[in-house]
Amino acid sequence: MADAYGLARVDGVLADGRAIHYYDPADAPTRTPSPDGRPLLLPGEGARPPQIRVDPWTGESVLLAGARQDRTFLPADDACPLCPSAPGRPTEIPDPAYDVVVFDNRFPSMAPPHGRCEVVVYTSDHAATWADLPAERARALLRVLADRTAALNAEPGVHQVFAFENRGIEIGVTLTHAHGQIYAYPFAPPILAAYAKRSTAHLAEVGRCLGCDQLAAERATGTRVVVDAPGATAYVPQAARWPYEVHVVPHRCAPDLPALLEDPAAADVVAAVWQEAVRRLDALHGGPMPLTACWVQAPSTQAPGGMGERPGAHTHLRLQPARRAPGKLKYLAASETGAGVFALDVDPDDAARALREAGDGHAARG
Amino acid sequence: MADAYGLARVDGVLADGRAIHYYDPADAPTRTPSPDGRPLLLPGEGARPPQIRVDPWTGESVLLAGARQDRTFLPADDACPLCPSAPGRPTEIPDPAYDVVVFDNRFPSMAPPHGRCEVVVYTSDHAATWADLPAERARALLRVLADRTAALNAEPGVHQVFAFENRGIEIGVTLTHAHGQIYAYPFAPPILAAYAKRSTAHLAEVGRCLGCDQLAAERATGTRVVVDAPGATAYVPQAARWPYEVHVVPHRCAPDLPALLEDPAAADVVAAVWQEAVRRLDALHGGPMPLTACWVQAPSTQAPGGMGERPGAHTHLRLQPARRAPGKLKYLAASETGAGVFALDVDPDDAARALREAGDGHAARG
Repeated sequence: MADAYGLARVDGVLADGRAIHYYDPADAPTRTPSPDGRPLLLPGEGARPPQIRVDPWTGESVLLAGARQDRTFLPADDACPLCPSAPGRPTEIPDPAYDVVVFDNRFPSMAPPHGRCEVVVYTSDHAATWADLPAERARALLRVLADRTAALNAEPGVHQVFAFENRGIEIGVTLTHAHGQIYAYPFAPPILAAYAKRSTAHLAEVGRCLGCDQLAAERATGTRVVVDAPGATAYVPQAARWPYEVHVVPHRCAPDLPALLEDPAAADVVAAVWQEAVRRLDALHGGPMPLTACWVQAPSTQAPGGMGERPGAHTHLRLQPARRAPGKLKYLAASETGAGVFALDVDPDDAARALREAGDGHAARG
Repeated sequence: MADAYGLARVDGVLADGRAIHYYDPADAPTRTPSPDGRPLLLPGEGARPPQIRVDPWTGESVLLAGARQDRTFLPADDACPLCPSAPGRPTEIPDPAYDVVVFDNRFPSMAPPHGRCEVVVYTSDHAATWADLPAERARALLRVLADRTAALNAEPGVHQVFAFENRGIEIGVTLTHAHGQIYAYPFAPPILAAYAKRSTAHLAEVGRCLGCDQLAAERATGTRVVVDAPGATAYVPQAARWPYEVHVVPHRCAPDLPALLEDPAAADVVAAVWQEAVRRLDALHGGPMPLTACWVQAPSTQAPGGMGERPGAHTHLRLQPARRAPGKLKYLAASETGAGVFALDVDPDDAARALREAGDGHAARG
């Protein structure tokens, strides 16, 4: 058992050798992981391993994940692989009960030693969503992401840890049970590398953190602020790419989640504002908002130009909603995916106003 | 009337001042454009003009298109704004008949002098698609794209002309009548700029064109070639980002479509291979493939680092299909849109084999 920012972590191994990590409250009885009795194929048996290919037109890496076409696709509720195991119904999680659990993805886009793909299951409740979780569970989740970030950043060859959630069958999510994911890329992902590069340049040019400057500017303008709590602010950025895009920015300037957790109270506020922002997005069109939630963190210290060389990084969360109006998704088309230019249908000031007026849904849920 | 690579172009003006261009066969009677009698608002009346905003995290431009939320959304077939006008039913095209027509988008993401958005209507036949067009119409279309590219590249402030087609209601297309679009960006679009930068670097490093080298490598490998015609090859690139992605590459090394049209026969082969590639994509899952079709062209000569400074550019078409299996779309999720890393489910060699075996649908259509 290990201490993970105040949680108790117990590590186990699944039948095919994949790692699993149970995170429990520090005062819970010490867990002994149940054995995984499933007859799973070992890695390399039957499936083509993932590959990383370099696009000569951009120099960027593309993940070729040969086995993912067979991945579990919208199973019935009673066949969910993220629910706890029960007698006669083994799942990905051998234990009969859990709080938060992390395990290596069975259908990964990257596999050791060339990257890692992990699944983070938020709760054993099949029907809950991030917005529904008790506040203490949301706080625990942020600690789990920090613990996995620290662990993966220490693994050989990891350049960038990326914690995220894909949410909503509208955007292709194949399992509805609330979960996030963590990718550990063995290279610099272009978008995160661009943020890091600009942050470094901004610090060199004006002597201040780019994230701190953006946060201060949005709080001063005020019209795009959605939630302003002591310690964290949620706002729609002035150059948003997504309808109702929201950034959740800690006031504490920390390069990544492990650094943010050096002040646990600061992290707790971030978890609460993250929940409120998603509740407001859910209230906007009268139902769960399909979105991607992306944690921007500094690269690993072992990466070229890593954390030690990039004091300008300011960790924050980006909520990228996929719906532009009730029943209408925001699709990425040729301008976005062929030229790299986003066309935004919703004025960021209007988006923020709508989110402030939407309420956070507490009353509606009783 | 002007000569447009062998077509006859006649220019007109719509009721709100937008330009319209009719392209007819050179031997057709000279057209006199019908007047547009619709009571349209002039630009600036009632709608917020588009804005361009710069994202401080990337330095990239984002288009804020305030009026697009009201754009025409999947109208009934008898209310299609891209059909010819008929008595009592005025459309965007005042004439009662046309071959190919181009006009300024009524709901643009960019407006003069800060960029341009044009609509290219392929045919007056409401039910036809690109794959169905007669070969001579496909050849004419490529000439129209070249003529508009040349015209827009000559306009003040245009840095990059981008000709494309968004195809399929699955990816958010709001009008089903076959049409493409042309954006003239007043800045360097990041993805196209990345290609240009790598092309320039490749030429400086190895003394050859990057596009020529990729084409030669794919033809030599052969396993990913879908169509190999005298003058143009269609292949699935080894580092594809999209399932069944196909690049249609002219053997003639030209920086853009106007330069390609200096050899009309070379352009004709490209039009034919483009059609065959789309027919094979349509045959793959038994119905029209939703996709984006993106023309990679060199920047305007007036752009910093424009054509004159970029002899390595090799114009080509990228077909980016959005379906990974029958009934299953490829969604872009957090890895793609939050980190910039694509995960590909279909091995490019398998994709090419499937497209070769799919046939081009000629027999099925009789």
